[in-house]
Formats: sequence, structure tokens, C-alpha cells
Amino acid sequence: MVDAAALEHNLATMSAALPGARLRPHVKAHKSTALARRQAARGHRAFTCATIREMEGMSSAGLGDDLLLANEVLDARRLGRLDARVTVAVDSEATIDAAARGGIREVLIDVNVGLPRCGCAPQDAARLADAARARGLEVRGVMGYEGHVVGLDDRETRVRKTEEAMLLLVAAHRQVGGELVSAGGTGNYDLNRWATEIQAGSYVLMDTAYARLGLPFRQALAVLATVISVSKAYVVVNCGLKALGMDHGNPAIDGGRVWFCSDEHTTFSAEAPVKLGEQVRVRPAHVDPTVAYHERMYVVSGEDVLDSLEVDLRGW
Amino acid sequence: MVDAAALEHNLATMSAALPGARLRPHVKAHKSTALARRQAARGHRAFTCATIREMEGMSSAGLGDDLLLANEVLDARRLGRLDARVTVAVDSEATIDAAARGGIREVLIDVNVGLPRCGCAPQDAARLADAARARGLEVRGVMGYEGHVVGLDDRETRVRKTEEAMLLLVAAHRQVGGELVSAGGTGNYDLNRWATEIQAGSYVLMDTAYARLGLPFRQALAVLATVISVSKAYVVVNCGLKALGMDHGNPAIDGGRVWFCSDEHTTFSAEAPVKLGEQVRVRPAHVDPTVAYHERMYVVSGEDVLDSLEVDLRGW
Repeated sequence: MVDAAALEHNLATMSAALPGARLRPHVKAHKSTALARRQAARGHRAFTCATIREMEGMSSAGLGDDLLLANEVLDARRLGRLDARVTVAVDSEATIDAAARGGIREVLIDVNVGLPRCGCAPQDAARLADAARARGLEVRGVMGYEGHVVGLDDRETRVRKTEEAMLLLVAAHRQVGGELVSAGGTGNYDLNRWATEIQAGSYVLMDTAYARLGLPFRQALAVLATVISVSKAYVVVNCGLKALGMDHGNPAIDGGRVWFCSDEHTTFSAEAPVKLGEQVRVRPAHVDPTVAYHERMYVVSGEDVLDSLEVDLRGW
Repeated sequence: MVDAAALEHNLATMSAALPGARLRPHVKAHKSTALARRQAARGHRAFTCATIREMEGMSSAGLGDDLLLANEVLDARRLGRLDARVTVAVDSEATIDAAARGGIREVLIDVNVGLPRCGCAPQDAARLADAARARGLEVRGVMGYEGHVVGLDDRETRVRKTEEAMLLLVAAHRQVGGELVSAGGTGNYDLNRWATEIQAGSYVLMDTAYARLGLPFRQALAVLATVISVSKAYVVVNCGLKALGMDHGNPAIDGGRVWFCSDEHTTFSAEAPVKLGEQVRVRPAHVDPTVAYHERMYVVSGEDVLDSLEVDLRGW
């Protein structure tokens, strides 16, 4: 379930900080075209995706004005068939070749800015841009995700490390050309002043991992669970690790201490007595893999269900 | 993907050890009626489920001869409507009341045998059995899941702790009556001699967590990923924590050391050179939450795809 007030607060706060094209919302965090539509209504018409399925879903939903697949693919044929403006990240001759053969027209050069994942070495960016142009591709600029920085607890460290990463990206951009420098995330959305657009996604729903950073966004997402068993020392609710992303650890429960999650249970101890049948909000440590388990989210205000949002971008 | 030979080996090995009704396969591990049908074909016609949706799916698939929901529910109405033999675990007056009001006819008394989760205190089992019978419910016996024991590394410790847990369950059974003592899992399937039926599920597909125990089952499940980026020190494939259950930690890759998983990437270092485009088998640490992310599994033998298994028991 999604708290309506927190959701609106998060959307409004981010739009005020990064209006229009300054934000390229990442849909991987919520995997819902219904939520993407709310972001578009706030003026963000260009989106970031992590999977081909997300690109397809956004295109089908009429949200294909400017879709970036911020990921490498070696088979771009499904992307080439989309009725949308499609830009793909490339970091090698092979991914450039795949884009050209798949019918893609625009690319970003993906530059490694310190996270050991995709992205070419900064000194290879210019060569790859030339190679892409030689294949008839339009090079719109560069992207470089500082994923090793966005979650750092200390703000001063985040500032310093963001600058380190972005100086690499800006230098590569100078060589590559194009209008876009795409980077950043929720954790450093307000302090990455080098990127022309920020790829934040988690801010919409927020999770306990990002909540530690003291950002102005509220935790909007929770799994609503029911207390199904009560013992002297602990309480058990009927949602577990198949309803929650667990890579950042256990979920949180207000007024409780989570002991562990099983497939379909969470055991916790509670400060105040909890009754059988009571409903409890379980807050995931990581939004993205949590949402990916669910078919839909319900937007709620108090006891009222205002809306149902299909999680229609799941799968691959 | 599911390795056909490993799957057949696992099904045959378990059926030889626990023939027919000695095994009540738990479908939560694979969430696929197609795989449940293979288990039924080996003589196991009674199944264990963890969710109402699993019960509904098994019933719809014609596999409803004897379905146990090994979990507590406070609203049994969806279960009462099934065209199947339905047994539900109860551990409180409230869950007995929910079963009776939901149109359920048969229950097991769920006894806490040491795992801090559902299950009544052993000394309360007889009272709850009386309460269930007073509501017109047939009490088929007891269940008690020793989940704190099944994953213990040392076999001798598993033997000793299984006995401790099962002596509690057997004592409760003596008070409760009925023909069933339902317990156990893949980790102690061969050494739980107190239960009349074993609720094992993971043995079919196996994962790296259970593989540590030296059981005679083979790892049949892997996520087939493609190498999309290669750097000097590491390699990146296109499956990540949204394709893998992460609660037991990182997945494993033969000939590689996994550094970390992102949403749609796994970064690892490889012993031998790996090429862009190469396909890599990523073995999940925990099968159950891995399968729950996927729409289908492919049974493969070498390069041949023999079958497609829908993961049709997902969701709630």
C-alpha cells in the first residue's frame, strides 16, 4: 500500500527541486505506468528504464516521449520495434553493434564513474562515441551512475564523492559531445550539480535504507500484513521475504523489533500488546525488489482506498 | 532454467526415500502446478501450501486430493469455496473460529516445536483440539515445523535437534489424536523418523544454502544470464537481485566470485576469461523467493529446451 499524502509530498518535493527535464525518473523503483503517469503530469516526460520490459510497457502506455534504457543490451531488436523515442546506453563495440543492428537510432555513452558495474573506462568514451557515430547512431551524450555514492550515510562524504565521480563524467562528456549528462539518484538528487538530468526513482515510494539519509522524502510504501499468531515474546504477521526485498536486510515495523522473515511470515517483538487480527504496516528496507513481487499497489488515505496501481512493468 | 537430469534425479531420489504419502511436497518452493504434477506422478498426491493462492491454484489444476495449508489464516472463506480436500493449520481459538466460519472441515493443530513463529505451546494442543472438535471440525493430527533445525550445517546436530523438536510434537500428538504428524523439510527429510509425513519442497530445485548440507539432491535451478559488460577486474551479467532471492546472500557462479548484485546486474570476478555475450548460470542462494520473481521456468538438457513450466502459484 502507498500512503497518498506521502506520495504527493514526495512527487511535489522532487518536482520543485528538479523541475521538468532536470529529472528523468527511473521507473525501476515502482514498475508502474500509473505512477509514471503521475510523474509525467508533474512535468517529467523523459524516463529511465532498467529492462527491455520496462521500455515496452512505458511505450505501450503512451509514455514513450523519451525513454532511456540505462543498461547494456546485446540484442536490441525488441527495443527497435517500439513506437517511442528510444535511447540505449552503450559501453562497448558489441553494445553499439547491437544497437545499430536492432534499429536503435540514439545512444548514450555509459561511463564507469567508480561503481564496478557497466560503463566504459572514461578514456574510452570518445573512441566509443566515434564508433557509434560511424554506425549512424546519434550520440546524445553520456551517462554514469555513481551507485557507490548515492547511499553513503554522511552527507559531506556524499558531496565529495559525487564530485569525484562527476568530474570523470564531465571530462568524458567534453570528449563525447551531445546535450545530455545523465546520472544521480535519490540519495544525491540535490547535490549532483554536474549532471544535466538526474535518474532518481526511489524518492516516490522511499524505503528504510534511503530514510537513513535524512532526505526530505517520506516512506510511502508499506506491506499491510495481518497478525496471525501471538506468543508471549513475539508476534507473527502474514507477510515475509517473498513480499519484501531482502538484500538491504529486514523490514521495519513501527513499535516493533523484527526478529526474522520466513517465506510468508515476519516474526517481531512489540513494545505494546498486539492483538490477533490486527493489521500492521511492514516497511521494506529496499523498495525496488519489494514492488517487483506484487501485482498491484493500493493508494490509501487513512482507511480509504483511493486508487489501485498495477505493477505492470514486472518481468523481463 | 531447470536442469532436466538434476530435476529427475531429485524427484527419483526423494520418492525412493519417502514413497507415496510419506512425503507431502511443499509447493511453496517451486510455485508451479506443472512441477507438482510431476511429484503427483511419482505417487505423492497430498501437498503442502503456504498461501491461499497456492491452495486455489492447486485445486484449479486438479491437484486437490489432499491440500494442507501449513499456515494460519483469520479469514478462510476463499479456502472454504475450493473444490478440494482442504486441511488448515490452527494454533488459536481465533484460527479455529475462522476455519469453522469459512466452511473448512478439517484441521491440524500447529504446535510450536522451537521455531519462534506460528504454532501453539505444546501444552495447549489438547485444549485446542477439543475446541476444534467442539466447533464440528475434524482434527487430523498435528503439525510442527522445525525450521530452526533443517538448515543446521552439522548432521549430528540436525539429528539431535530434530529429535528434541519431534519429541515435543509426538507428545502433543498423543494428546490430540488423529493420524497425521506432519513436519520436516529437505534438510532433515531422512532423519525425521517421528513425523508420519515430511513437508519437503526445496529438494526438487535445490539452492546453494541447502547444497552446503551434503544432501543427495543436485542444484537444478539457475538463472541464465548474459554477460553484458567486461572490465579488467570483473564481469557483469544481466540478472540481479530482482531475479534472485537475496535473504540467504549472494548467488553463486561456477568459476567466479560474486562481488554484488544490483537490481538488474550481478558483478563477479572470473577465474578464466569471459566474453561479452557469453551465457552464465547464476545459482540462487535461496530457491523459494527466486522462483517467486519469475513467470516461468524452462526445463533444459544441454542446449535443448524440453519444457516450459509456468510459475502459476505466485502472489497471494
